[in-house]
Amino acid sequence: MADPDDVTIDTIRAAARRLDGVVRRTPLLSSPFLDAIAGRRVLVKLECLQHTGSFKFRGGYSAVSALAPGVRARGVIAFSSGNHAQGVAMAARMHDAPCVIIMPRDAPWLKIENTRALGAEVVLYDRATEDRDAIGARLAAERGLTLIKPFDNAQVIAGQGTAGLEIASQARAVGVSRADVLVCCGGGGLTSGIALALEAEAPGLRARPVEPEGFDDAGRSLAQGRIVTNDRISGSICDAILTPAPGAMTFPIMHRLCGPGLAVGDAEVLRAMALAALRLKIVAEPGGAVALAAALWHAQQIEGDTVIAVVSGGNADPAMLGRAVAGAETMEAAHGTS
Amino acid sequence: MADPDDVTIDTIRAAARRLDGVVRRTPLLSSPFLDAIAGRRVLVKLECLQHTGSFKFRGGYSAVSALAPGVRARGVIAFSSGNHAQGVAMAARMHDAPCVIIMPRDAPWLKIENTRALGAEVVLYDRATEDRDAIGARLAAERGLTLIKPFDNAQVIAGQGTAGLEIASQARAVGVSRADVLVCCGGGGLTSGIALALEAEAPGLRARPVEPEGFDDAGRSLAQGRIVTNDRISGSICDAILTPAPGAMTFPIMHRLCGPGLAVGDAEVLRAMALAALRLKIVAEPGGAVALAAALWHAQQIEGDTVIAVVSGGNADPAMLGRAVAGAETMEAAHGTS
Repeated sequence: MADPDDVTIDTIRAAARRLDGVVRRTPLLSSPFLDAIAGRRVLVKLECLQHTGSFKFRGGYSAVSALAPGVRARGVIAFSSGNHAQGVAMAARMHDAPCVIIMPRDAPWLKIENTRALGAEVVLYDRATEDRDAIGARLAAERGLTLIKPFDNAQVIAGQGTAGLEIASQARAVGVSRADVLVCCGGGGLTSGIALALEAEAPGLRARPVEPEGFDDAGRSLAQGRIVTNDRISGSICDAILTPAPGAMTFPIMHRLCGPGLAVGDAEVLRAMALAALRLKIVAEPGGAVALAAALWHAQQIEGDTVIAVVSGGNADPAMLGRAVAGAETMEAAHGTS
Repeated sequence: MADPDDVTIDTIRAAARRLDGVVRRTPLLSSPFLDAIAGRRVLVKLECLQHTGSFKFRGGYSAVSALAPGVRARGVIAFSSGNHAQGVAMAARMHDAPCVIIMPRDAPWLKIENTRALGAEVVLYDRATEDRDAIGARLAAERGLTLIKPFDNAQVIAGQGTAGLEIASQARAVGVSRADVLVCCGGGGLTSGIALALEAEAPGLRARPVEPEGFDDAGRSLAQGRIVTNDRISGSICDAILTPAPGAMTFPIMHRLCGPGLAVGDAEVLRAMALAALRLKIVAEPGGAVALAAALWHAQQIEGDTVIAVVSGGNADPAMLGRAVAGAETMEAAHGTS
């Protein structure tokens, strides 16, 4: 049974030791142009530069490396069509462990190929006629595979929390001791992990989840003090962070530690992607840009003279990136302040 | 008179001390997908993540910080419509020194605005009817400004060389002691600075200039052992690195230390920009992507099992970035191996 007490700052510190020399310590950058838009200093944590293009590598590696060697040698399995799949696949390859990723047959072809290129066996299923969990359970039983859940797993949360240890240290290095830390939030693994790390290492920094408008299950759950669900989990460009509800492990942590959630619209997300490209020279995927969007255009909901925003992933498909950049041309023509 | 002996490893180390805590130590990243294309390990130095979006901040800060305080207080002046302007402007602002940038009246409006936003006074001139050098000389004399040349300046070369110190250290950290280091080359400030740093700190790493096809003055000058010029300095998308000839200071250094030059076509540059975005999650400008293009598609001209490529800048305009990314969609459809 999922128990939020399974993950503490000690779990995160142990994960950080396993990840040392493997994970990329991603930069915390700023731009005077972004500061001018936000009306305060904006520090951006670039998890898009992490291995596999998102923070998910942290949790995947933490979970795989925490397994007993004999268990790990039998292999791991995950359900994902996106960043968690790639994070787990690369982590498994680094441990020479077999890895099965179960993906819907209609997942983007490039994501399937990328996951295969990272050494995983991809098993496709039909969303309409097949039961994903049954397929996974059968494979796991047959081969002795260990399931790595995307967020309700103590070692996954601990791995994501290592990003919070870095934020605490990097903020301290630039003299920031009080700030809201805006985190792109799906199931809450990254948000809860960062919140735990900040509680111990930088108590003046407060984690806050950011979600797409209409899909703000974490924000509404925090406001109501209990887990509430989204009515739907499609219809936003932020596919990577559309989840039905916060996790049974992640929600209690967020409820204890996080500030109120924020929600941003798709148009704001596209503008944030464009500014990330033009001002920070990085590629953010839509779900990875929501926190930056909130930092830039929801200033009145944020406290303090500095805000920290996590860009959690950069696996944008070319069409979406092109759409964001094309919007930037219009922004410049209209406002000249991109 | 320009004398290449004015800049040595000691000049570079002194610049590194002045830049310590100011410059960004940019990451050296890799991607298994790029390795597969190149047929060898590809390490990419991300100078696009430097302050002002290019390595030029290093040289600008080095030069401004090297001035005597009384001289610096009168201010600096530079001719540039691009990255050198922004690098010098930000360096001057950090020193509270006045800064005048002379730009052609037809420079892109956004570049003029960006330079102003960094605190510089922008003086515009008409390319057809006005003499840029005369305007600069008059302003310098009237106000006591110091001219910061873009590459034939010992302190500028020394500043760019600090990128080479980082490459030497970062390559050592991942066990690379022999490799070609491909450097995007305009006037040769970055290439010569890196070459000097590598000579002292990592003698198994060899700097090589990379230029656009048809504008390979440095490569042809190296081959002929004397400075030769380009027939023209327009007609490539790589505007940031189109120079008439290598510098009087930079060429002797490159001639003594560099391996043969390489030249890449515009189509390769656009593909490299697309792969930088999709695989490394970074934005490269065309002139900043030539070294990566050579690493990926000129493998037969490169020696060793590892190649290091410097992405020297990320100040791509949205239309060019959009063009590169749109090409990526076609690449994927056609080859599925982006």
